[in-house]
Amino acid sequence: MLSKNPYRGTRDFFPAEKRIQDYMFAMMRKTAESFGYESYDGPMLEEVELYKAKSGEELINDQIYSFTDRGERFVAIRPEMTPTLARMISQIYREYPKPIRWFSIPNLMRYEKPQKGRLREHWQFNCDIFSGEGRLGEVEILLVASALLENFGATHEHFEILLNDRAIVDCVFNDLMGVDKELAYQLYKIVDKSKKVTSEALTKMIDEKNLEGPARKVFEEYLALSSPEQVIDYLKSYGKEEVANSFAEFMSLIDESELGPYITYDPCIVRGLDYYTGIVFEIFDKNPENRRAICGGGAYANLLQIFNEDPLPGVGFGLGDVTLKDFLETHGLLPNLSINDIDLVLSFQTLEARKSVWNIARELRRKDIKVLNLFEIVKFKKLFPMAEKKGASFVGIIGEDELQKGVIQFKNLKTKEQIDIALSDFDQMAEVLKKAQNEIN
Amino acid sequence: MLSKNPYRGTRDFFPAEKRIQDYMFAMMRKTAESFGYESYDGPMLEEVELYKAKSGEELINDQIYSFTDRGERFVAIRPEMTPTLARMISQIYREYPKPIRWFSIPNLMRYEKPQKGRLREHWQFNCDIFSGEGRLGEVEILLVASALLENFGATHEHFEILLNDRAIVDCVFNDLMGVDKELAYQLYKIVDKSKKVTSEALTKMIDEKNLEGPARKVFEEYLALSSPEQVIDYLKSYGKEEVANSFAEFMSLIDESELGPYITYDPCIVRGLDYYTGIVFEIFDKNPENRRAICGGGAYANLLQIFNEDPLPGVGFGLGDVTLKDFLETHGLLPNLSINDIDLVLSFQTLEARKSVWNIARELRRKDIKVLNLFEIVKFKKLFPMAEKKGASFVGIIGEDELQKGVIQFKNLKTKEQIDIALSDFDQMAEVLKKAQNEIN
Repeated sequence: MLSKNPYRGTRDFFPAEKRIQDYMFAMMRKTAESFGYESYDGPMLEEVELYKAKSGEELINDQIYSFTDRGERFVAIRPEMTPTLARMISQIYREYPKPIRWFSIPNLMRYEKPQKGRLREHWQFNCDIFSGEGRLGEVEILLVASALLENFGATHEHFEILLNDRAIVDCVFNDLMGVDKELAYQLYKIVDKSKKVTSEALTKMIDEKNLEGPARKVFEEYLALSSPEQVIDYLKSYGKEEVANSFAEFMSLIDESELGPYITYDPCIVRGLDYYTGIVFEIFDKNPENRRAICGGGAYANLLQIFNEDPLPGVGFGLGDVTLKDFLETHGLLPNLSINDIDLVLSFQTLEARKSVWNIARELRRKDIKVLNLFEIVKFKKLFPMAEKKGASFVGIIGEDELQKGVIQFKNLKTKEQIDIALSDFDQMAEVLKKAQNEIN
Repeated sequence: MLSKNPYRGTRDFFPAEKRIQDYMFAMMRKTAESFGYESYDGPMLEEVELYKAKSGEELINDQIYSFTDRGERFVAIRPEMTPTLARMISQIYREYPKPIRWFSIPNLMRYEKPQKGRLREHWQFNCDIFSGEGRLGEVEILLVASALLENFGATHEHFEILLNDRAIVDCVFNDLMGVDKELAYQLYKIVDKSKKVTSEALTKMIDEKNLEGPARKVFEEYLALSSPEQVIDYLKSYGKEEVANSFAEFMSLIDESELGPYITYDPCIVRGLDYYTGIVFEIFDKNPENRRAICGGGAYANLLQIFNEDPLPGVGFGLGDVTLKDFLETHGLLPNLSINDIDLVLSFQTLEARKSVWNIARELRRKDIKVLNLFEIVKFKKLFPMAEKKGASFVGIIGEDELQKGVIQFKNLKTKEQIDIALSDFDQMAEVLKKAQNEIN
């Protein structure tokens, strides 16, 4: 017996769900385009080598859908967009006018245990800017991400941007603590995990590293930092003026662009071990019931290294559709999309009127009107409730009377007003429908 | 060395190509919605059993990307949307208001030798209507497909709809020729191939079947039919009034809906062996240089059979992005989408103006204006050519003079007109930009 269910960890998008997704996608596109970002896309399959080059062997084998094709190529369904982006950028970055601003909304697959907020198939809004004059590119990427949420009606009461700078973390580990590369790597792991464990467990993890001399104090001071001002003072107190000033410059740009109210400094945001080189950030839902990251990103310098190409500074973020929808639902920020949106249901009350109905439908559709044709004669008693159920604003009726008079009767389902319009006056029909539309919006 | 090329048979969509795809997708969505069709989507992966149930074992193994997941499920990347559609419809068809009108634009993968018009990854516009009152549903689906091409500016000079009715083919094979199921199956194959072979080869294929008595004559007469009138006469001459009348009724609806000029009767269109039960059609490019099917579809009755569900009459079509783009390019029906579309490039000519620039950008983006922020002071000589290259209509400039006067200078790159607008008058800025937009469109 065939299963009617979708494959584990994936979703069927029936129209009511698909309307929500389309609404979210349209907002992503609109937001990215409002900043001048250009849409791109790549293949659903890439060679596994590409993912290995970026993320390393072990990470890859655990989480990707990979297989060998009939031509003995070892390929994978894309688990993320960045490697594809790197491959594409490597082809054109020398000639392309800078900064390069690109966005995409690919479907991705990763092999994992499905749970709230994480599925095997999801869509991810990706925005990246390359050669964006360092700090200004970083600020713009934060503006794009926050503008998307603002466009849905969210404010700083709903979300916050937890932010750090990998330049600061590197400075703390390498210069202030003087630990070697291997230990720095382990400390990154501790920092990355620190919020998911109790403070006892955290202390134990740090104890195990046997940090020598002042390193332990420096590290604990670092973990206690909670505002940009504190970070800047901390770095200066250890004589790290340059790193402090660069971050201070970034924060002044944040204030200038009025992003300040969203930003929280968080020393525990590091976002993995390699890859990022500048700011790193995660956007969190402020609702304690849905306390999770909606979006993550950061600045990186060596995206093209895997192709032996020159360093190209970039900043970007990824934002998944599953967590975004949870966020919007949690805060009541989704409009009611439970029924379809139709302008006009066309009904003939006599078979002789059917040709006029085809005709009107065709002409109105050319004027961007959404018209639903009925295929049979439907009595008024059934017609109006059915049209409302279909999400229509108007019903157009041609019966014997109307046909004789050469008109169609338009009935507004909301106001109950009705008007007769000449069968050939498509302009007036469109006008009446569009006027009602504008009154709703 | 990592390859910079996309996986064989797939495409990288750089912005210039992606704009074309987005333009085509937007037209598909707009067209489907103008007929009241609702958007849906399903997973990228399905269990292989689903495809086998619909298409049979051998067809499947040749053409799909299949593999076993870590949970020992045998899955495939979707090669077509219909099985997913059947699975989804089977879940809801009892309760869903009829007719059900759905559309989707999924990315699909099939394993084949890449060639012009056929790639391994493509996108396909799918429209289906269920319980659409038989013949009227068939007509509506043809209207949707032709409206899409019309919306791109195509006419009957550019494309034609080659059409047949499986009820006619079945009547000819079973009733008029009286061949058994196995031979009918072989004749379907001959008909399906008949256009791809020479008339000698065709005659040879028919000879090999040793058709007995009048069967040979009936079959050859059938293959020579070339208009709906001829088909109707032919069926009537053999006493098949019912099948003739049903097709005549269909053709009168075609005329009533003004689809007539697109329709060509073609006895060789059968579209495979199983599945279809009513009309079958293919939309062909009329240009001899690009003589290929852009779209194919038909009516089917037993979509839900694989789930042991009741028969549900449906009609649908699939239209791929690769052949559609070839068609539009062949006939010069694509607008120039080589550069991005930006409303305004914002430039500060003194650092003090940067905050005003952030501010104006934010407010205009909220009014659906596409604004590109420059990150550094760019001299006029470089600024205007660069803004034109970015696809901008206007440049907004704040220098020392403007800052002192509290204005921004808007310069129309096309007309060279310029106007000063108060820094806080976002409404006037939006008005000036939108007015220029409307003049272009």
